[in-house]
Amino acid sequence: MINKLVENIKKTNAPVVVGLDPMLSYVPKFITDKAYAEYGETLEGAAEAIWQFNKGIVDATYDLIPAVKPQIAMYEQFGIPGLAAFKKTVDYCKEKGLVVIGDIKRGDIGSTSSAYAIGHVGKVQVGSKTYVPFDEDFVTVNPYLGTDGVKPFIDVCKETKKGIFVLVKTSNPSSGEFQDREVDGKPLYEIVGEMVDKWGKDHMGDDYSYVGAVVGATYPEMGKVLRDIMPKTYILVPGYGAQGGKAADLKPYFNEDGLGAIVNSSRGIICAYKQDTYGNFAEENYADASRAAVEYMIKDINSIF
Amino acid sequence: MINKLVENIKKTNAPVVVGLDPMLSYVPKFITDKAYAEYGETLEGAAEAIWQFNKGIVDATYDLIPAVKPQIAMYEQFGIPGLAAFKKTVDYCKEKGLVVIGDIKRGDIGSTSSAYAIGHVGKVQVGSKTYVPFDEDFVTVNPYLGTDGVKPFIDVCKETKKGIFVLVKTSNPSSGEFQDREVDGKPLYEIVGEMVDKWGKDHMGDDYSYVGAVVGATYPEMGKVLRDIMPKTYILVPGYGAQGGKAADLKPYFNEDGLGAIVNSSRGIICAYKQDTYGNFAEENYADASRAAVEYMIKDINSIF
Repeated sequence: MINKLVENIKKTNAPVVVGLDPMLSYVPKFITDKAYAEYGETLEGAAEAIWQFNKGIVDATYDLIPAVKPQIAMYEQFGIPGLAAFKKTVDYCKEKGLVVIGDIKRGDIGSTSSAYAIGHVGKVQVGSKTYVPFDEDFVTVNPYLGTDGVKPFIDVCKETKKGIFVLVKTSNPSSGEFQDREVDGKPLYEIVGEMVDKWGKDHMGDDYSYVGAVVGATYPEMGKVLRDIMPKTYILVPGYGAQGGKAADLKPYFNEDGLGAIVNSSRGIICAYKQDTYGNFAEENYADASRAAVEYMIKDINSIF
Repeated sequence: MINKLVENIKKTNAPVVVGLDPMLSYVPKFITDKAYAEYGETLEGAAEAIWQFNKGIVDATYDLIPAVKPQIAMYEQFGIPGLAAFKKTVDYCKEKGLVVIGDIKRGDIGSTSSAYAIGHVGKVQVGSKTYVPFDEDFVTVNPYLGTDGVKPFIDVCKETKKGIFVLVKTSNPSSGEFQDREVDGKPLYEIVGEMVDKWGKDHMGDDYSYVGAVVGATYPEMGKVLRDIMPKTYILVPGYGAQGGKAADLKPYFNEDGLGAIVNSSRGIICAYKQDTYGNFAEENYADASRAAVEYMIKDINSIF
């Protein structure tokens, strides 16, 4: 899947990923009205609304982008129906040829980490039958529990040729509380980065490893250091746009070949119709606004090369 | 809920929690046969099997114990039907008067952490209606993203009077890779422990905080230090039994009042029928074996006081 991700990026000339992180408040009224008319103001109604919202955005942008990153928390908050909408979104995006990065930030140990891996990027055995429960191409993984937590994901991914992105340095203001603490003369995130590089050597694609890293756009000087520590690692970069990261700051995350990083934008794309930046779009045309925002973002990111 | 947890522990005189972490291989054949006969060898069949397995164990032990800790990964691996079995298990345990600790180890930032909190220990708004999607009493939270990741959980928990257990020092062999790294002359887990103490002061029950900590049974000397750093924090202790933690090692996790800690056992209880320790139980009597194992565990833990 890392090869497919690289291929999709080359094909679209767009090192960007659209974050499908729908809040109900993002969904235009004509969509929620229709969903509630059919399912009532229920969890099923909310799930239908976010699914229809997503579908509109995917239909309007899939030809421009290599990948999407649905954030499972936004679906999980609507319970089982919400998670069914997550699955529907994953499946639909894959049908459209997109690489799907499940932003699930799971992490546990041993057989428990295996179970998460099986559920999201693996296969589960039931009697004599095999099933693929959620079927993302990549998932994000939290490294706080160490190798015991990450290795089971890699083992499952080796079988299915799927991959992970390990949280190294996150984009949020308080990420430094633990991640920046100095250990043996260097910050903890560098030590995690070294481990990602090591884990990745064990599961390589053609040019890049199946073990990627998450490094926030909001810390470009750290991005530069981590790029050097993890030369074969694809870096998933959140924090562009709404969180304050600028295109000019993103150069250090890329390798000389213009590859090695993929930049996420969520609100900036899926809520584009609420902003003036891309022209005045009516609610009904929210998906066109998302397309305009994607086009703008691709141009903006590519301006750094 | 921290008050109810303390009350349940006093009532049962059992500072133990049963980890409901079912693997299909744990489920006796007579249960899977029945489930597959009804639903086929499908995800629904697997989910039915683990739900029936859980129900048997809960029915056989609920009067002895204060709390259960279902591990969501074990359900998530069976996709949507598995997660529905998780919800059914949570609801059933609550009906039986048990405190339910959802072992979900979630952690993200801002509105995303809020969404997880809303889904598991909060309420979600859909139009004019409000729903409680998963309804655990506590959830486990990963602190790697710092205060931005933890605070949204606490905010939601304040409204619902529910709580969290923050991963501080986990029970697995490689937990030290990052958690033990020395920062300003002390290991990272102590710094996380200090933050847990600080976060907890903001959300106190009668005697203990709603912000608990996870500290593995396998590191008793660290348990002692963390007990002192977090005097008002309930400590959830995994790693007893199958992972090698012994009762004699657990004293440092408790306060003078015999409270302040709750010890988890998963495989040791739910797979008791596969062991010789509690007598020879036939598969049909797996739940009786679990009851015997719980009785043994309570006696074992209480022997340290």
